[in-house]
Amino acid sequence: MVYITGWGHTKFGKLTDQSLEDLIVEAGREALGHSGLGADVIDGIWLGHFNGGMVGDGFPSSLAMGIDRGLRFKPATRVENACASGAAAIFAARQAILSGEVRAALVIGAEKMTHLPTREVATCLGHASYQKEEAGLSFPAVFAQFAQAYFDRYGDHTQALARVAAKNHGNSVRNPLAQMQKPLDEAYCAAVSDKNPIVAPPLKVTDCSLVSDGAAALVLVGEALLGDAPRAVRMRGVAQVSDLLPMSQRDLLAFEGPRRAIHQAYERADVTVNDIDVAEVHDCFTIAELLIYEAMGLAAHGHGADVLQGGVVHAGGRLPVNLSGGLKAKGHPVGATGVSMHTLIARQVLGQADGMQHPGAETGLVFNMGGSGVASYASVLEAAK
Amino acid sequence: MVYITGWGHTKFGKLTDQSLEDLIVEAGREALGHSGLGADVIDGIWLGHFNGGMVGDGFPSSLAMGIDRGLRFKPATRVENACASGAAAIFAARQAILSGEVRAALVIGAEKMTHLPTREVATCLGHASYQKEEAGLSFPAVFAQFAQAYFDRYGDHTQALARVAAKNHGNSVRNPLAQMQKPLDEAYCAAVSDKNPIVAPPLKVTDCSLVSDGAAALVLVGEALLGDAPRAVRMRGVAQVSDLLPMSQRDLLAFEGPRRAIHQAYERADVTVNDIDVAEVHDCFTIAELLIYEAMGLAAHGHGADVLQGGVVHAGGRLPVNLSGGLKAKGHPVGATGVSMHTLIARQVLGQADGMQHPGAETGLVFNMGGSGVASYASVLEAAK
Repeated sequence: MVYITGWGHTKFGKLTDQSLEDLIVEAGREALGHSGLGADVIDGIWLGHFNGGMVGDGFPSSLAMGIDRGLRFKPATRVENACASGAAAIFAARQAILSGEVRAALVIGAEKMTHLPTREVATCLGHASYQKEEAGLSFPAVFAQFAQAYFDRYGDHTQALARVAAKNHGNSVRNPLAQMQKPLDEAYCAAVSDKNPIVAPPLKVTDCSLVSDGAAALVLVGEALLGDAPRAVRMRGVAQVSDLLPMSQRDLLAFEGPRRAIHQAYERADVTVNDIDVAEVHDCFTIAELLIYEAMGLAAHGHGADVLQGGVVHAGGRLPVNLSGGLKAKGHPVGATGVSMHTLIARQVLGQADGMQHPGAETGLVFNMGGSGVASYASVLEAAK
Repeated sequence: MVYITGWGHTKFGKLTDQSLEDLIVEAGREALGHSGLGADVIDGIWLGHFNGGMVGDGFPSSLAMGIDRGLRFKPATRVENACASGAAAIFAARQAILSGEVRAALVIGAEKMTHLPTREVATCLGHASYQKEEAGLSFPAVFAQFAQAYFDRYGDHTQALARVAAKNHGNSVRNPLAQMQKPLDEAYCAAVSDKNPIVAPPLKVTDCSLVSDGAAALVLVGEALLGDAPRAVRMRGVAQVSDLLPMSQRDLLAFEGPRRAIHQAYERADVTVNDIDVAEVHDCFTIAELLIYEAMGLAAHGHGADVLQGGVVHAGGRLPVNLSGGLKAKGHPVGATGVSMHTLIARQVLGQADGMQHPGAETGLVFNMGGSGVASYASVLEAAK
């Protein structure tokens, strides 16, 4: 079994004065300090980073050595699975610990995006699509296809998408590390306006996550170091499922990779959705969060909106989703996102989520996704000590 | 323990008609078929790929699913550590097997480079340097600094570098998958000429490896599947050591990361350099191969050239190095290189290296490197069955 015993998290947002290296070092140093471990027992570093041309650092794995010179000569590896690069790094580190060759691992997710014009960011993120068929298609356009297919099959869900956006913006007010910390009215999110224009029909600005700089970090340990840890969160069950890259070869609304990953994680953790108290999921676009409710088993196909109407997924509900504000309002520095989500659920299940805390949370779910359901990572986390 | 039980390898060279995806699928399909395993027991796919802006495929991990539809929904992960991305993928897959969660892994390394003008390739590869201090510095210029430092300390070694080049080109004649399969005269390699100009003093064209397209693949299994394997090579001892990225913070000639990685691998395999029968090492530049002889313990600091004069590292010598032709003549599709090296040593220790075979080889060394000794991977392989 593998445990999270420390974390770090920069502010997410437009961090003009910080380079990719600065972000990696800030989050990693905080996590290492928080874990109480010295660099000497860190047997490896895993960095989740997409890049896609956004920064010149094409070989960033060793940058984390700026944290502490005791990390020099440790193995350091970059892992990339698009917007799930963060979870990919966590999962690689976890298996390294389970191999018995690594006592403790430092995992960092980081991305630097806001120095580029939005159009260039979109081009870089577009490299996460299947180039042979989808080159030039922006991610808003990709998820617009999901939304349009959903609307075509289940009716217009503009209001439900607005509700997702309003919920997540509302939550972000209680997350001091979030990029935007202001509530947005559901009516504002539902209506096309000068300030909320269509990006790719039917998706509007308020349906899209943010362009962000930021980093998050975790220290993971195996059983051998658990005794000394000041706190610990058990990775009770995790699963990664990868799907075919071309959209043309997938049934979009089946959202099969995410569904399989989440249900495999439940099974391995020996839980059902009824045991999950709180979740951070990949709301890169509002339609994605709606589909994830269904993939989680919270609602049947086409019925994701029900849990929004019932308040199930809102703060104070049965299973609050994205109390951090989500990618929508917390921000989405893509390589950092999966790591950020794990830090947030770790805090929740230990009762250390401050203003975001869901009272009594003991078991939480993380769902991090690369591409449009191509690389799917689910983790069931619970308090260990 | 983890075993190599199958391999695949495309031709290296200018493969105009094949995309990155085509290369991945060709090598991966060959390895899977060679292993005798069905896609159903492959519990994960690891792809080593640098990219650096050379192709638009920024999220290539799932491309391997084109090999066999039975791979859909398996975890697929891209790993990047510059020119050691191939070994990085192997090492991640190996730890996944040791974790007990993966029975068999498909590992593929691939790169597509020759569609770009050489100047653009150099720019893309330059992303593997420390951007804050070394942006714009090409890799020939980086290794020229190593060569110049070596010459300054130990005297002019132009002839030794020419001997490395001539040796590897000579070997390549017996490797039908090599990009160049023609001998080059030592005198030609030693002299500046119209056809062999200085690239970055003191390095000439013949001191540099090639720009190449290509892919290589391996199937790795754990003990549970060893019984059914038609052949097996034991990964007896492996080590990864990462060093600081900035050249300004490293003593170039100490070449400490490579030295540590190789010696850790020896130690874990319980061998010395005297037990190694054959090696494939990272001759991205001739000076690198000279430094690697010293890092291997074949020669003391400043004495790498001795093993060239004595014929130790030549075909038929005590410890032939780069019988494949090396990066120098076989080619260097960067993400593929580490995987290619492992396939070649696997073939050597099983006596299946055809015209390249070193008679009686039982134990071999792979040394794959990212950047200028920044990410260092060493593997001691031996025949298992």
